[in-house]
Amino acid sequence: MRELRHDPIQKRWVIISSDRARRPVDLEPDLQAPERVVEPARCPFCGGNEDKTPSEIWRWRDPGAPAGGPGWSVRVVPNKYPALTIEGNVEREAVGHYDRVNGVGAHEVIVESPDHGKRLADMTLSEFVAVLRAYRARLNDLRRDARLRYILIFKNYKERAGASLQHPHSQVIATPVTPRTVAMELDSARQHYGLKERCLFCDILHQEVREQERVVQMDEHFITVAPYASRFPFELMLAPRAHGHDFGLLDDAGLERLAFHFRDVLRRMQKGLGDPPYNFLLHTAPNTESMNKRPNYWSTIAADWHWHIEILPRLTSVAGFEWGTGYYINPTPPEVAAAYLREVEL
Amino acid sequence: MRELRHDPIQKRWVIISSDRARRPVDLEPDLQAPERVVEPARCPFCGGNEDKTPSEIWRWRDPGAPAGGPGWSVRVVPNKYPALTIEGNVEREAVGHYDRVNGVGAHEVIVESPDHGKRLADMTLSEFVAVLRAYRARLNDLRRDARLRYILIFKNYKERAGASLQHPHSQVIATPVTPRTVAMELDSARQHYGLKERCLFCDILHQEVREQERVVQMDEHFITVAPYASRFPFELMLAPRAHGHDFGLLDDAGLERLAFHFRDVLRRMQKGLGDPPYNFLLHTAPNTESMNKRPNYWSTIAADWHWHIEILPRLTSVAGFEWGTGYYINPTPPEVAAAYLREVEL
Repeated sequence: MRELRHDPIQKRWVIISSDRARRPVDLEPDLQAPERVVEPARCPFCGGNEDKTPSEIWRWRDPGAPAGGPGWSVRVVPNKYPALTIEGNVEREAVGHYDRVNGVGAHEVIVESPDHGKRLADMTLSEFVAVLRAYRARLNDLRRDARLRYILIFKNYKERAGASLQHPHSQVIATPVTPRTVAMELDSARQHYGLKERCLFCDILHQEVREQERVVQMDEHFITVAPYASRFPFELMLAPRAHGHDFGLLDDAGLERLAFHFRDVLRRMQKGLGDPPYNFLLHTAPNTESMNKRPNYWSTIAADWHWHIEILPRLTSVAGFEWGTGYYINPTPPEVAAAYLREVEL
Repeated sequence: MRELRHDPIQKRWVIISSDRARRPVDLEPDLQAPERVVEPARCPFCGGNEDKTPSEIWRWRDPGAPAGGPGWSVRVVPNKYPALTIEGNVEREAVGHYDRVNGVGAHEVIVESPDHGKRLADMTLSEFVAVLRAYRARLNDLRRDARLRYILIFKNYKERAGASLQHPHSQVIATPVTPRTVAMELDSARQHYGLKERCLFCDILHQEVREQERVVQMDEHFITVAPYASRFPFELMLAPRAHGHDFGLLDDAGLERLAFHFRDVLRRMQKGLGDPPYNFLLHTAPNTESMNKRPNYWSTIAADWHWHIEILPRLTSVAGFEWGTGYYINPTPPEVAAAYLREVEL
C-alpha cells in the first residue's frame, strides 16, 4: 500500500507506505539499527559498483568520461525502496470524512561522491558545486511533471539523523500534495506580503543583519542565522541575502557562491560541535507547473516567497512534550549558538 | 533565560529555557543518556524519600495516613528543573518582527506510585484511578490561574520516549500561550462546527464505529482507534464516545470507566508490542479563565471541541523527511495496527 492520507484535525498529510514493515516484529531492526555498515566493495553507491543500483537518472561526469560505469562525481538513482512511485495518474478521493491521494510521486537518491568516506564539509569547492548542480537539475526536471506539487530535497547525515546508509547521499521526494509546514510558510509569507507588500523573509533577514547577534556567517550573497525562535540547539537557516523565490533559478556562479558559504557553515558545525548528526532541507517555491492550475492563489509567489535551507543538528533527543503540543523546549538560546559557531576557527 | 518566542514563519511558540545546558559540551550527557538509573533508596520519587523533592502540591492519601511523609499513592511536586516558572506577570512584547512572552508558567511532576518499578499497565484499577484523579485535580486547580492559556498533561515512558527518570511519573506544563498543534485542532473543530453545527470528533468517531477496521477497543463509554492518517506505527487516539469538551468535568465514575479502558489499551501495547517506549498526551479544552477574555472566539467550544488522549508508541525513529516537511512516512497502515492490537490476548 502506498497512499497519502489527510488528517482532518491536524490538516496534515501522512504517507502510508507499507512495503517494508508491518507487524511490530518487522519494525525491530529499525528500532535498534546501527548505521548500516557496508564495506565499500559491497556498497551500491561506491564508484565501480554502478551496476548495483537501479538505472541512473542523472550524473555529473568527469571531463572525458563515458556515460555508464565509473567516471562521475555525483549521480542520481531511484530509491530502491521508494515511499512513492512515479507511475500512474493522481487520484484524489474522499473516504467518508477523510481524504486520500494515491501514492504517486518520486523518491530519488543523490549520491554525492563515488568515495564512501567523503563528507560534504570536507569536499573541494568543485565537488560541492557538483552536488548543488544535482539538486538544481532534479528540481528543474521534476517540475516539468504537473502531477507533482512539491519537490523536497534533503539530507540525513548519520544514523541518529535518519540515514540508513553510510555512503554520502541526499534524497529527493516529490509529492502530489503540499506538505503542511511548507503550506504554513507559504501562507505566512503571503499574509505578510498582503499587508505590507514586502517579503517576510527579507524583513527578518534585515533585522538579523542589523542586530548581528544571531548571525553565524554572512558574505555578500548569503547569510546563515540561528533563528530567533530556534526549536533545537544550533538550529540554523541559510538564505540568499537578495530576494529570490526559487533555488532552481540559481546560475552556475550562484551555485559556486552558495557552495562556498554552505561548506563553511558545515565546517563550523563539524569542528565546533564534534561532527554531529544533522538534517538539512531545501525550502524552495512549489512546482510552477502545478501553480499554473491555481493562478490567483500563487500569483505573488515570486514576490512573497524566499528560498532557504533549514539545517538541524541532532544534539538533543525530542521528548513527548514536543510531539503533543507543537512547541519545543530549547536549552540553548540562538544568540549563544550563533556566537559559539562564529568563533570556531577553521 | 526562560522565555517563549514566536516564529513568524511557522507560527509556532518555542520555549527557550537555558538553565541546564548551553554549550555543546553541556548537551553531551543528554546525547548518550541512558535512562538515568537511580536505586530506589536514592530515588527522590520513591516512598519514604518525600524530603528529597520540593514541597508537595497535591497527594492522594491512603485512608488514615497523615499529611507529609509516606502513606500516599500519588503525589504531585514542582519540577526541580522547570522549563517555566510560576512567579510574575505575563509580559508580552514585540522584538522587531518577532514576539516574545516571558517564561511564566507551571511545570510539575505527577509521581504515579511510591513503587519504583510500578508500570501504569500493571496497576490495580484504584491505583490507576488515583493517577487520573491527580490529572483532574491539577488541571482544575491550574485553570484558576487566568495567566495560563493551556494546561498540558503528558507522560514520557522510557528513555527513548524522553523520560529522564525511571520512577513512574507524568508531567504537567501550563503556558501563557496556546501551542500550535492544539490551536490547529481547535481551529479545525471550530471551522467544522461553523459549517455543519456538528462536532468534528463526533463525526470522525461515528465513521470509525461504523467501519470498525481501525477500532482497537470500544466499550459503552470510550473508544480507542488507530487514526486514519496515523503518523507513526501503532499511533492511537482514545476519546469518550459521548461528546464532552473537558476532561476536567469527568466525575469519579467517569474516571473509573476511563481507567478501565485506558489500562486495557496500555496492556495491549505492553503485551503486543513488547512493552515499547511511548508518549501520551491529554488534549482537553483550553483554560476557561483565559477564555473569558476572548468570549466570542471561544463561545462554541463546549459544542465544537472533544477531549481525547493521543498515544504514541516509539517504534521507529523519525528521520529528516518528517522534520522539514510536516509529513510523515508510516510503514504500518492503521488498519493493520488496529487488527493486531485487537487480537492481543490479555
